[in-house]
Amino acid sequence: MDVLILKYEKLFNDYLDENLNFNDPKNLYGPIKYFMRIGGKRVRPVLLIMTCDILRKNINKALPAAICVEFLHNFTLVHDDIIDKSKLRRGKQTIHEKWDLNTAILSGDLMNILSYQFLQPYSDKLFKKLSILLNETSVKLCVGQQWDIDYSQIEKTTRSNYIEMIRYKTSELIACSLKMGALIGGLSNRYSDLFYEYGINLGIAFQIQDDYLDIFGRKKIFGKKIGTDILENKKTLLYINTYESSSVNDKKELIKLYSSTNNIDSKTKIKRVKEIFLKNGADKKVLKDIMKYQKKCYELINNFPIEDIKKKLYKNLTDKILFREK
Amino acid sequence: MDVLILKYEKLFNDYLDENLNFNDPKNLYGPIKYFMRIGGKRVRPVLLIMTCDILRKNINKALPAAICVEFLHNFTLVHDDIIDKSKLRRGKQTIHEKWDLNTAILSGDLMNILSYQFLQPYSDKLFKKLSILLNETSVKLCVGQQWDIDYSQIEKTTRSNYIEMIRYKTSELIACSLKMGALIGGLSNRYSDLFYEYGINLGIAFQIQDDYLDIFGRKKIFGKKIGTDILENKKTLLYINTYESSSVNDKKELIKLYSSTNNIDSKTKIKRVKEIFLKNGADKKVLKDIMKYQKKCYELINNFPIEDIKKKLYKNLTDKILFREK
Repeated sequence: MDVLILKYEKLFNDYLDENLNFNDPKNLYGPIKYFMRIGGKRVRPVLLIMTCDILRKNINKALPAAICVEFLHNFTLVHDDIIDKSKLRRGKQTIHEKWDLNTAILSGDLMNILSYQFLQPYSDKLFKKLSILLNETSVKLCVGQQWDIDYSQIEKTTRSNYIEMIRYKTSELIACSLKMGALIGGLSNRYSDLFYEYGINLGIAFQIQDDYLDIFGRKKIFGKKIGTDILENKKTLLYINTYESSSVNDKKELIKLYSSTNNIDSKTKIKRVKEIFLKNGADKKVLKDIMKYQKKCYELINNFPIEDIKKKLYKNLTDKILFREK
Repeated sequence: MDVLILKYEKLFNDYLDENLNFNDPKNLYGPIKYFMRIGGKRVRPVLLIMTCDILRKNINKALPAAICVEFLHNFTLVHDDIIDKSKLRRGKQTIHEKWDLNTAILSGDLMNILSYQFLQPYSDKLFKKLSILLNETSVKLCVGQQWDIDYSQIEKTTRSNYIEMIRYKTSELIACSLKMGALIGGLSNRYSDLFYEYGINLGIAFQIQDDYLDIFGRKKIFGKKIGTDILENKKTLLYINTYESSSVNDKKELIKLYSSTNNIDSKTKIKRVKEIFLKNGADKKVLKDIMKYQKKCYELINNFPIEDIKKKLYKNLTDKILFREK
């Protein structure tokens, strides 16, 4: 399993490297090359390539679309990092930190445009199918990001609003990657949608795990600062779970800690919120949620039109993604 | 002539209005609707619709692509306004001024994505042709914007660098609009390229006129602050013409005025630069340049595969665009 993933990852990274062959203007392409090369888990391209490989045994045909989704993903990170004022991404400086705001805006814009351009090698019919999917997904990424901003400014977010938000912000592109792999792999729209649905559930669980790691992860392994969601008053499932079930006093304190008018220093804020989360078992509830989505993923995988031995590959990958430490 | 342009403009504005039917999240779509509705000259959609109408007598088929180019244009304005720290656009507040930075970044991103989505009504083959053209154009818009930033930070820009920069930043999208109109109008790539070439020359002259109006225009009519290019140390043709031909003393003073280390207040800076431009006849030279491009436009129009009476329409429109006051 791991050998296969590593193979896809290497294949993708080599192909990406070949395609980062633009140079001038260097103030525009330099930041793009830097950001595309600082790595990341390459979850989306790997899922896309694997799906196409399993269905069609044609890895090469998947590569341009794999770059497309990775560029789209990284474009959103560059702009989200500005919006969230993040200084680090994958343990390295973000573009607006290493260069400046204008560079981050413009190079992010170009990454978005390049993501479209990478679909050009496909035939007219497939090109249009993939483009429509990419458009839908990109719109949802923006809407999800807006909800994320909106929800951080109100006291209470419902569970369903939160799930819808991370679905748009994270799952849709994972689902899009899987569906692209299925379409390029020759499946009909109907069968491709099974992969899409799997991606939606995988993505939600993936993001819940991300929220968990943001607070309970180990900084060295996670590669990002711990507790940023708390500092940004993000109402993740940990918050919502606690809000829904805690005592009056805990809830009161939590609301106060998450209001922008308090005068608590960052370190104390993170420490105290963590304590309230743990006291109310929010961490355990979140792990249960992840397992609920894992189960849904398994059910969908069982319906994939592929051999059992290949279904096993998807199940293993699901576990690897959901129970990761970074 | 004017009646025809007004007809295209009205048709476009009505269709645009129908298509601004998105609502939630309002913090995301609100700014987009605001910005798309504050008007502008609608040069690109009008050129696209007119070309399709003249070639095919089918205006409706041109409308989705007309929205596409207008959305792309407005997306670049929203992000350029952040980069240039502009407070006004068409006499109204820019998005980052009326809302905030994050809203301007995210709504601009979505406008870029929507521009792609508006091409979806076209058939597979035409969709791909138009998308490839849109991709090429969008990449050039970003590169042109980067050159604009780069050149404002160095003392000397050559004439050819400047023309190349405004070609990328302005002409390419005008040329793309005309070519889209020709392609949707049923012309082959070869004939469509005549319209594209015309657009390149029209666009360069259009931008030179814009630079002229930025300094010698009348604020009330122009709708923007006068002299912003000077304050941003932009080396437009007026600067380059003066730099190339002025006396040692004028050149020295000009360089000093355009360096960021001087302590001159904005009003005095604009006044003094204007005096040096006028003394060296930079304004007259620039008008000569515009007429040179007007001549090229006429030559290209003469080769269009259309009746003479319709060629006259393009010539009149060219003059209307080039010798405008806003």
